[in-house]
Formats: sequence, C-alpha cells, structure tokens
Amino acid sequence: MTSPAEQAQSLTPTAIEAAYGLIQPYVHRTPLLTCKTLDSIASTPQSPESLVGTPFEGQTPASPKFRLFFKCENLQRIGAFKARGAFHALLRLIEARGEKEVRQRGVITHSSGNHAQALALAASTLNIPAHIVMPSISTSSKIAGTRSYGANVVFSGSTSVEREAVVAEIQAKTNAILIPPYDDFNIICGQGTTALELNAQYTEQVRSERTLDAVITPIGGGGLNSGVATFFSDKSTRVFGAEPAHEGADDCRRGLQAGERVTRVSTLTIADGLRTPVGLLNWEVISNKRKVEGVFAVTEEQIKAAMRLVLERMKVVVEPSAVVGLAVCLFDEEFRRRVEEEGGEKGWDVAVVFSGGNTTVEAIAKLFG
Amino acid sequence: MTSPAEQAQSLTPTAIEAAYGLIQPYVHRTPLLTCKTLDSIASTPQSPESLVGTPFEGQTPASPKFRLFFKCENLQRIGAFKARGAFHALLRLIEARGEKEVRQRGVITHSSGNHAQALALAASTLNIPAHIVMPSISTSSKIAGTRSYGANVVFSGSTSVEREAVVAEIQAKTNAILIPPYDDFNIICGQGTTALELNAQYTEQVRSERTLDAVITPIGGGGLNSGVATFFSDKSTRVFGAEPAHEGADDCRRGLQAGERVTRVSTLTIADGLRTPVGLLNWEVISNKRKVEGVFAVTEEQIKAAMRLVLERMKVVVEPSAVVGLAVCLFDEEFRRRVEEEGGEKGWDVAVVFSGGNTTVEAIAKLFG
Repeated sequence: MTSPAEQAQSLTPTAIEAAYGLIQPYVHRTPLLTCKTLDSIASTPQSPESLVGTPFEGQTPASPKFRLFFKCENLQRIGAFKARGAFHALLRLIEARGEKEVRQRGVITHSSGNHAQALALAASTLNIPAHIVMPSISTSSKIAGTRSYGANVVFSGSTSVEREAVVAEIQAKTNAILIPPYDDFNIICGQGTTALELNAQYTEQVRSERTLDAVITPIGGGGLNSGVATFFSDKSTRVFGAEPAHEGADDCRRGLQAGERVTRVSTLTIADGLRTPVGLLNWEVISNKRKVEGVFAVTEEQIKAAMRLVLERMKVVVEPSAVVGLAVCLFDEEFRRRVEEEGGEKGWDVAVVFSGGNTTVEAIAKLFG
Repeated sequence: MTSPAEQAQSLTPTAIEAAYGLIQPYVHRTPLLTCKTLDSIASTPQSPESLVGTPFEGQTPASPKFRLFFKCENLQRIGAFKARGAFHALLRLIEARGEKEVRQRGVITHSSGNHAQALALAASTLNIPAHIVMPSISTSSKIAGTRSYGANVVFSGSTSVEREAVVAEIQAKTNAILIPPYDDFNIICGQGTTALELNAQYTEQVRSERTLDAVITPIGGGGLNSGVATFFSDKSTRVFGAEPAHEGADDCRRGLQAGERVTRVSTLTIADGLRTPVGLLNWEVISNKRKVEGVFAVTEEQIKAAMRLVLERMKVVVEPSAVVGLAVCLFDEEFRRRVEEEGGEKGWDVAVVFSGGNTTVEAIAKLFG
C-alpha cells in the first residue's frame, strides 16, 4: 500500500478525465442552473444587525457581486453525486480483478446515506452482488431505496465499531470487497468528474473567454471537495469548501486551523451527509493551500435559510447538506469580503455544487413546520 | 362586444403562434423533463385494494404504459404559466390603445395568486402602472412578491363582491384598464403558448415521427386548458383536463355532465389555484368535445401523493394545483383504462403541464407535517 501522501501525488486532472471517460455512460450530465433572484440576494449587502456578535460587528457589510452557477447533483442518479464515485470505484475494481472474481466475491460498504444507494445502483447495473450495512435506525425510505436496487441490506448498530464488526462478519463469510464512501483514490476521481462537467458547461453557457472564478462544495468525508480540487489544481479557478458549524461538524476547518486532521466528530447537524470527519487521502488534498484556498462553516439557521431560498425561489429540491456552499456565499462575511475585494466591480462567477436532493416531505416538514 | 361563442371561433392555432411571437422575449422556454421513476410508477397497475369503493372495485386494475413529459411552468417567470397570458394581454392592450394611453391609465386586476404577480411583472417590465386588488387575508409572501415588482397593492375583503367593489373604486379614480385572469381572449392565447413550446420540445427530444398522444393540464378558470386545447385543435394530440374533486372544485367536470357551465364554486381544496369556476370563453372551448376529450377529478390525498412523488423523486418544487394532471395519470382508473385500451403495447406519450411552483416550506410542512 502506498501512503496517502504518495497516493495524493497521482490525484491529477488527467486521472479525473480518465474517470469521466469510464463513467460517462452510467451517470447523468446534470444541469448547471442559474437564478437571477439568488444572484441578486447574494449580491445585496447583509444588514448591519446580522453581523452583531460576529468579528464584523460595527463594520460596513461587504458588497460583493456574485453570478452563481448551480451544479445540480441533486438531479444525479440516486439523487446525489455519490453515483459518480461508486460507478468509478466499481468499474476500476472490475478492471483490476476481473469481472469473474468481483462477481463471485461481491462488494460491501457501510453507509446510511447516499453512498449506500449509489453502490447498490452501480452493483446492480454491473451485475455484482452488493452487501450494504446500514444502522437499523435508518429511515425506512433509505432502506427501501437501497433494497430497490437489489442490494442485500444488513442491519447493524449505529456506532462505527458496531458497523465495522458487521462488515467484518460478512466479509469473513463472503470475501466481499470493501468500497469505502470517500477515503479512496477511485472514489475521489469519480466525484471529481463533477468539476470537469461543470467547467465545460460553464464555458458553453457564458460563451466568452471568462473562466470560473471559484467553486464551492460541501465537505463531509471530503470525497467531492478533494475530487473537485484535483480537477482544478492546474487551473486558475479557486476551490473552497463548506461545512456545518453545529456541534463541531466543521472538523475540516478546525483541522486546518490546528494544522492537524480532526479524526472524530460527533454531531447531529441537520446537514446529515456532513457528519463524518474528513478522510486521510481527502485531507492530503484539502489541506494543500494550493488546491483548496479555504474552508468556511455555517450555522444551522443559515443552512435552513439557504434551503428555503432554493426550494421557494429556484424550485428545486435539495437536502440540507447540499446548500452549505450557497450559505457561505450568502452569509459568511469573510468570504463575501474576499469576493468584494478580489472580484471588485466585475464580481465573481462562482459555481456552487448542490451535492444531493435526498430528502422527504416529512423531513422538510420537520425542519420548517 | 362579440359573444363568447363568436370569440371562440377566433381561438385558432394561428392565434397562439402570433401570441408566441409577441411574448417570446419576455418569458422563459421552460424545460420539458422526463423521469424514469415516475414512468415506471405510472405504468404499474394500481393495487386491487385501492379500487375498493370505486366503480372499478373487483375488476382487474388497468395496466397502461406511460411515457410522461413534464412541462415545467413552475420554472416559468414568477413561478407559473400566468406570466405568458399577462405579458400577452398587456402587449395586445398597448398595441390596441397605444403606449401613451395605457401608461397614463394603468392596468388593474384582482387576484390573490399567480395572476397578480404575473401582471405586476409584465406591467413593471413594460413600464405601465399596475393596481392589484388582493384580499387582506393573502399570505404575506404573495403580497411581498407582488409588491416586489412595483405594483400598487390594494386590499379588499375576500368575497368576489368585495373585491369587485374595490376594483370599481380604483377604476373610477384612475380609469385603469382591467386585465382579467382567465376569461379573456388574449389571456387564453398567451397561456396556449405553453402547448406550442412543449410540442416543439417533444419533437426535439423524441427525434422520431411520433406525435404526442395526449396532454393533460389543470383546470381552474380554464385559461391554460382552453389555450392548450386551441393549439392542438388541428392536431392528433388529445387534450384532457384535471380538477380537484374536493367540495365541488370539479365544476368543469360536473358542468360537462350536466351540459351546463357551473358558475359558482365554494371550495377550500389544497389546490388553491383551482378554486374558481371555469370562465365563459374558456367553457366554449373546453365543452367542445373535439377540443377537450375529457375532464377528470382527483382527491386531496391523490394530489398530495402526486406532489410527494414530484418533490421526492423528480426533485422539483410544485404547488398542489400543478400536479392534478399527474394525479389523474397515476390514480384515475377510467383514464388509465383508456390509455391501456388505446395505447396498447406501445402505450401513450403524455405531456403533463406543471402549472406552477409557488409554495413555501411552511405550506409544505402544513400539508405533510
């Protein structure tokens, strides 16, 4: 096994392009949408009152100019970008081990969320048996969703120790191969195809020599953000990350401040896709200042406010985790100052990745009822 | 004044094409989306239990094949198809009376819903003063939305008598010209452009000689349905209408059965855009069997079930009124039998018009919380 630092060296734009060639037949080219109403809201200074209690209290609110481009991975297959990584990791596994061996052994993962459904879909599409270990407290819609792709759902307790024990047990029986959710070279390359696609769509849409000024994505385990940062690592587009701040879910931001990866997180943020700490290989990319320029964190109320705007104004359904990047653009005064200072009169063209849309009307009711 | 029957004679596909030429610079070409999951759900027979208590109880559930094409007027400007009619009526008014007269007198309407915002937008775009009479009990988001386009919002009581009194009062003072919400030749032609657009998009997308088998739209006042039926009146595509059944909101269906237009409706259906009776000129079109082949009605629970599917599976936000056509495809056994019988093995390509998406997270919470 090569070390994460060595593996990170191979994370190049070329690797993302190769991944794209492989997964293209299996994933949607999701739309890159714009919304004048959101541009105008984001380009309006916050009220002085909203800065009370922040380091910017008493200062003139920033007046940045945003043109936002929303990469709608909520409209991706299984409702999240995770389909990209799962297809890529499985296709590479088949390439490396041969179809026969992979089909005989099967694959396994533990996830209560979008990675479970993504791997189940990829496995059923490629005719590979899949075992998905889910906490028995998972919502019934997620269990049903995963089962609907024909995966063998196995229940476990909800701590990582309990989950890993069940995985080990099934592996002992079946010899199934683990496909991890984010801390994996091929998963990262798969998620990075989001960047390749949105960059091409941006160029098609703006029809000029302009390049994207920045991209911002959510950070949970960091698969999406490190993949996107890999793709842009030889381009002028800046890459940023966004996290929820609630109960220490901003492990990546805190890790960057401390100069050391935070390895444990225990949070019940409403952005339930972002409750995990950043993975090792992901950290190698994200902690590289030349690849990711900054990570920002937002409050639960800011996530809800951004989610409301997307549902009510853009009319697209997003899950709370999907909008942390937009919430940074709308509410993080440090980020907004930077856009004002560096973007000036012209402002910034910012791509915001909506990572997923897997929520239910009951969950929306619980958030806003 | 010509009679509705005479006016109806001039409602031709050519009139819709002319309307489109006029409004095209002002409205969005909204997407025509497909969704394999919804196709598959619609193409699955209902359970025998779900037919208990209906005329189809004890019979084998129909097994129709649907390929659905969703015309997303929820993504139209102001979030509903109403922008089409409002721009068209106002542009025609300016054509007929001259910009100077219309600007001096202004325009007026009474509406608590999407027509209010649509006329406010059209008027502000064309620099015409607009007075919008809204019931004082309107939700604050709708009042704010209408005001945000610079319209003069005037409050009234909520009965039609009270609203019309306020309109008369303002007209006496300002000589403002009334732009009605649906019972109007130019409004109908404007809404009919929805059909022209979706038909062109369908042809682009299927890339074959196939033609659309059917279109289904909601019916409130009937502006959208009569406009769509006008456009398809010289084509093979069948046009259907959909209404809520709750508390007699299915006035159009009942009127067709009785052979006479129902002129009064008092319902609090959750499909709040469809609480009005069908207009006179609209009735001339809709009651013509060669133009509209049938009108179906769905229950509140069926509307909610359809809305849930659209939000959770398609990830687009729709208001309850928008999904009555989809609810007919999913749940109306009579309609489903017809698709099975006439569509056979091949099935039907059906365009479903999502009329609007103006709802709030609180309203979603109230429906599903």
